[in-house]
Amino acid sequence: MRHALALAARGRGAVEPNPMVGAVVLDAAGAVVGEGWHQRFGGPHAEVHALAAAGERARGGTLVVTLEPCCHQGKTPPCTDAVLAAGVARVVAAMADPFPRVAGGGLARLRDAGVVVEVGVSEAEARRLNAAYLKLLATGRPWVHLKWAMSLDGKTATRAGDSQWISGPESRQRVHELRGVVDAIVVGRGTVEADDPALTARPPGPRAPTRVVLTAAGRLPDRCRLRDTARAVPVLVFTAAGNEGRIAGWAEEGAEVVALPAGEGGLSVDAVLAELGRRRMTHVLVEGGAAVHGAFLDAGAADELHVFVAPLLIGGAAAPGATGGRGVEKLVAALRLGEMTAAPSGADVYLHATRTAGGVSS
Amino acid sequence: MRHALALAARGRGAVEPNPMVGAVVLDAAGAVVGEGWHQRFGGPHAEVHALAAAGERARGGTLVVTLEPCCHQGKTPPCTDAVLAAGVARVVAAMADPFPRVAGGGLARLRDAGVVVEVGVSEAEARRLNAAYLKLLATGRPWVHLKWAMSLDGKTATRAGDSQWISGPESRQRVHELRGVVDAIVVGRGTVEADDPALTARPPGPRAPTRVVLTAAGRLPDRCRLRDTARAVPVLVFTAAGNEGRIAGWAEEGAEVVALPAGEGGLSVDAVLAELGRRRMTHVLVEGGAAVHGAFLDAGAADELHVFVAPLLIGGAAAPGATGGRGVEKLVAALRLGEMTAAPSGADVYLHATRTAGGVSS
Repeated sequence: MRHALALAARGRGAVEPNPMVGAVVLDAAGAVVGEGWHQRFGGPHAEVHALAAAGERARGGTLVVTLEPCCHQGKTPPCTDAVLAAGVARVVAAMADPFPRVAGGGLARLRDAGVVVEVGVSEAEARRLNAAYLKLLATGRPWVHLKWAMSLDGKTATRAGDSQWISGPESRQRVHELRGVVDAIVVGRGTVEADDPALTARPPGPRAPTRVVLTAAGRLPDRCRLRDTARAVPVLVFTAAGNEGRIAGWAEEGAEVVALPAGEGGLSVDAVLAELGRRRMTHVLVEGGAAVHGAFLDAGAADELHVFVAPLLIGGAAAPGATGGRGVEKLVAALRLGEMTAAPSGADVYLHATRTAGGVSS
Repeated sequence: MRHALALAARGRGAVEPNPMVGAVVLDAAGAVVGEGWHQRFGGPHAEVHALAAAGERARGGTLVVTLEPCCHQGKTPPCTDAVLAAGVARVVAAMADPFPRVAGGGLARLRDAGVVVEVGVSEAEARRLNAAYLKLLATGRPWVHLKWAMSLDGKTATRAGDSQWISGPESRQRVHELRGVVDAIVVGRGTVEADDPALTARPPGPRAPTRVVLTAAGRLPDRCRLRDTARAVPVLVFTAAGNEGRIAGWAEEGAEVVALPAGEGGLSVDAVLAELGRRRMTHVLVEGGAAVHGAFLDAGAADELHVFVAPLLIGGAAAPGATGGRGVEKLVAALRLGEMTAAPSGADVYLHATRTAGGVSS
């Protein structure tokens, strides 16, 4: 199963909104005779790849798979058909698939056909692997990544707003890799005005994320890289209902402008996420600035953190930090993250943490 | 020499304001026959320990030592006498000792007596080991450690000031260990008022640091742990000239109150450091708050950083960060640190960096 999980992870960024799935086939003697993973959205599932590689050697053997095989006709035929045709005697699955058209039906069909079925092996790891897929299914909201680069004293810019570059080239490269596996990158108006970012993955990754700009007031610069490239790479602007007219120029140049509910603190973060989830976006990367990060945090929408700490001190009571918003009053109310890891990233340190060790909290 | 440097480091916290020194004696055949280190201020030097351990086997051998042997009568007799009496043929020293009463005189005396002298082996490492000693000698100012604990979003407290505890027990234990090897712990008035800290090392380390409070305005609480324990553990209060009277109660209870020059931004950091250096304090640990950290940073007085990052998000535009003060306007002016290391500290990450890789910048 460990190997199957590692195979599954190879599909990251290419299979969404499908889950990542890996599969290993053992023959009747227990030798590995096939392996596969779900490689791209719309392509064959992991089981099909693994069973094809095994061929006749699968007969009487075992299929180890990280997720319940599907039993419905989707973009590809039901995997249960392939499993039964291959004649495996036993299926070991890490977890059932909560996808409504599967939801235990695949395992039931295999059992009904006389296959020995075991489920729940390494389930925690499998849930962690597909935490974003599971969250989208359970809540209709994408998995939210927050990312920033800060100095060792926690500043994301100088008091004069100078922020390019706090982190080094290795860290910026990691951010580009992250951009290449998400569905959307979200920034606020301030970031567009201050940094004029392109928000593309360079070099491109398996996904080309939609660039999302939040501006409740409908105020954005007339000329900037996002607007100028909106026909080449999708740009989605969320604004408060009634303010669409102020950014009509963006729509004319190819950006999609969508009105959403807004309150005193700006756009409703939940409405933003509901709309992105409706579009079946699985991973959303929020790149700031502080007000946007703070709004997501205040809304409880912070699933995974990517923080690059650079070995420098900026100082200044007026220099901005990573998160604004309202924040918590008491430490006990702070959002506690699961296991945090630290890895060197050039001269910087890359701190990575997820909200819960086991994936989605229910 | 690597072993000698490791031996030297065992004296940390016990030898200051002396340097840490380690020594290894090899016999004529190159076998290790003695080792030692300077163990405590006023006690025998490293060479004496190592030569005593070697005894007659030192004759015709080599003394490897991390610092030039002294040639003056201080609290102990000159080490050069011991080296010559032992009859070693060769001395390998990492670096000359800039201490005015030595300053190459020790090595010259050995050469004059016919000993083969080599100097400069692993000098960079030796300078790094004794960077604080070298800084105090060169500038009259102690080595300044800045320490804070912050959330992953760079906050040191909530918007309401709740800060106990951001970091976990392992990190707080590391802070106590750090306190036990420094000469002074510096805090501002705000920290005394907000946290009422004891600022002692628990359990005690080799040093019992003086607790230093900065208050240009001479405003401090009438009752707090520092004041209440001032007769048991030294408390030193720096205030602006003319404001001593406001804290006469502290002096009555055993604190030492010293007037220093102050400007608009508060007390002169350089005057604070000059006074601590005059008292031959080698290591000073600045524990905040943000205004004090910012003042030290603005004054260019930040030699070594100890930052504990906790896996939680606090949020809030009004929540304080690690450094206040004026800060830099342009990123190129930010204080760049030498190699930064990250180590797990319970659930936290301990980030450690020094100002320059090679010790004191001249």
